[in-house]
Amino acid sequence: MDINSIAKLAGVSRATVSRYLNDGYVSAEKRKVIARVIKETGYVPSQQAQTLRTGKTNIVGVILPKVNSHAVSRMLAGMTLEFNDAHYQTLLANTNNNKETEVSYLQLFAEGNQVDGIILIATVLDQEHRRALDALRVPVVILGQDMEGYSSVFNDDYRSMLQLCRKVLPNSVHPAYIGVTQEDVSAGQERRRGFLDACAELGLDVPADAMGTSPFSLDGGYECAESLMSRHPELDTFVCATDVIAFGALTCAREYGRRVPEDVQVTGVGDSDLTRVVTPSLTSIHHHYQTSGREAAKLLIEAMTSKDVVPREIRMSYGIMMRNSTR
Amino acid sequence: MDINSIAKLAGVSRATVSRYLNDGYVSAEKRKVIARVIKETGYVPSQQAQTLRTGKTNIVGVILPKVNSHAVSRMLAGMTLEFNDAHYQTLLANTNNNKETEVSYLQLFAEGNQVDGIILIATVLDQEHRRALDALRVPVVILGQDMEGYSSVFNDDYRSMLQLCRKVLPNSVHPAYIGVTQEDVSAGQERRRGFLDACAELGLDVPADAMGTSPFSLDGGYECAESLMSRHPELDTFVCATDVIAFGALTCAREYGRRVPEDVQVTGVGDSDLTRVVTPSLTSIHHHYQTSGREAAKLLIEAMTSKDVVPREIRMSYGIMMRNSTR
Repeated sequence: MDINSIAKLAGVSRATVSRYLNDGYVSAEKRKVIARVIKETGYVPSQQAQTLRTGKTNIVGVILPKVNSHAVSRMLAGMTLEFNDAHYQTLLANTNNNKETEVSYLQLFAEGNQVDGIILIATVLDQEHRRALDALRVPVVILGQDMEGYSSVFNDDYRSMLQLCRKVLPNSVHPAYIGVTQEDVSAGQERRRGFLDACAELGLDVPADAMGTSPFSLDGGYECAESLMSRHPELDTFVCATDVIAFGALTCAREYGRRVPEDVQVTGVGDSDLTRVVTPSLTSIHHHYQTSGREAAKLLIEAMTSKDVVPREIRMSYGIMMRNSTR
Repeated sequence: MDINSIAKLAGVSRATVSRYLNDGYVSAEKRKVIARVIKETGYVPSQQAQTLRTGKTNIVGVILPKVNSHAVSRMLAGMTLEFNDAHYQTLLANTNNNKETEVSYLQLFAEGNQVDGIILIATVLDQEHRRALDALRVPVVILGQDMEGYSSVFNDDYRSMLQLCRKVLPNSVHPAYIGVTQEDVSAGQERRRGFLDACAELGLDVPADAMGTSPFSLDGGYECAESLMSRHPELDTFVCATDVIAFGALTCAREYGRRVPEDVQVTGVGDSDLTRVVTPSLTSIHHHYQTSGREAAKLLIEAMTSKDVVPREIRMSYGIMMRNSTR
């Protein structure tokens, strides 16, 4: 079954069927007949033929840092709502937090005319990224980091961490921080800055070796908490840059016989499902990941379908979720 | 910088550079010179040009049912080891457990000559899938389900569940089961059959309404456990088809004042990181997800690079992880 057969069965010209398939003008009457024939024959227009006709692939590329992540999966869920509605398929490229891989997927999507637009769920953004982004011939939206000159949607990592610490650290004399790489501006630098500014406000002195850095993993959180406790047995709070790291710190504190929250408070970021399952339940920051994914998709669809779209930077709000891992 | 400039700088013919880039024969001496020039100029061969030359894209498509999954992320980690080694890039398509989406991505990958091969991390396989698979012009490997006529790598869902129940159910008089959709042969039918056969062996009578079905989610597990406990207050074990469902059941039992494992035992499947973080730690089945992903990638690479490869079905072994959620 091809476009000619559909035209014949519907008693219209090939050009009319083509306009119908590409959302061009077709009279209501002919539209009805073509729709019926397509339904009865089960005709599916070939993607390649459609691409040749329209110069569009109706595919969006999403570059993401890891798959097994609460934040990423919520962002994808939000995007999918918008992209499904607008009839885009989505191809994902997983970079495993590797910068070179990230750049190479940007190039892959850019070169092959494979996609109409790109969402980059970003962690680290440096000169090489900027070069690869500048070379793109399709629109791009950055999700998770603020990058000047590009449309982006990101969380308020600094103020949310500041607020959380203002609630939790008045109960603390010796807080410790478990952060992530400073190359990640949002999760690394901004959250850390929120913690340090809150400590300064509250007159809390934090020695440099009470600030650890962990990979984005449970075991990383465990090991970092272990070495912090050995250096500073007096520490009474773990402020962690992610929920998963906090789960590791929680497990470590418990295995070393510290009561949470009586002896040690623990906090995370992300408000993932499991925060309510662990005992004690984990105090965390709720970021609107799903909504931010949805906003990013809307920005991209607008950029793919309209001309002269002005880049925008959207900062999302947040919520502080107090649970039983803090006093 | 293009292939002609590289040839000029290296003092060799364009054809020699092309053979070098496509792993054809080049003398050791020329190979050295070309490698140096490429390194010095930072030349990256264009993907499109390479595809035109070789008819290969060096891209593999992976269709997966969900992103936020321990099993899927481990499978991807295993694949990535092999695909990176063999210089393949990987594009992922997330189907959100939707059958129509799965078939449409199979068609997308098949039509566009976008990929050299496909791995389908499968949940439900029906006639429509078989038609879409049969229409593929590139090799495919099925991961997670056993499908006759196709190369596949899958877990021993039946025997692993039978073994787990043989260890856990001798302590039980009124076991309940929280399963997933029967459309999923591996996780739905096979695990359920393992549970039922163990109950029969042990002479345990399980009423039909002590067998629940849940979505693959924490809230699903919670709600299913809640309705099972209201129908059968006497129940003393929740055997669950996945870890995430078991986390929901664990939370529910605790909120209703049941002690785990004294009053109610809980078991999962998957041996995810969080099994050790929740209290009590969760008894579960370890499947070799990472190794199975690696095996699937090896099968696919062989099929993409050799002729006359005979399809193989590989069943993986497993381990039973006894922890504190069972007596």
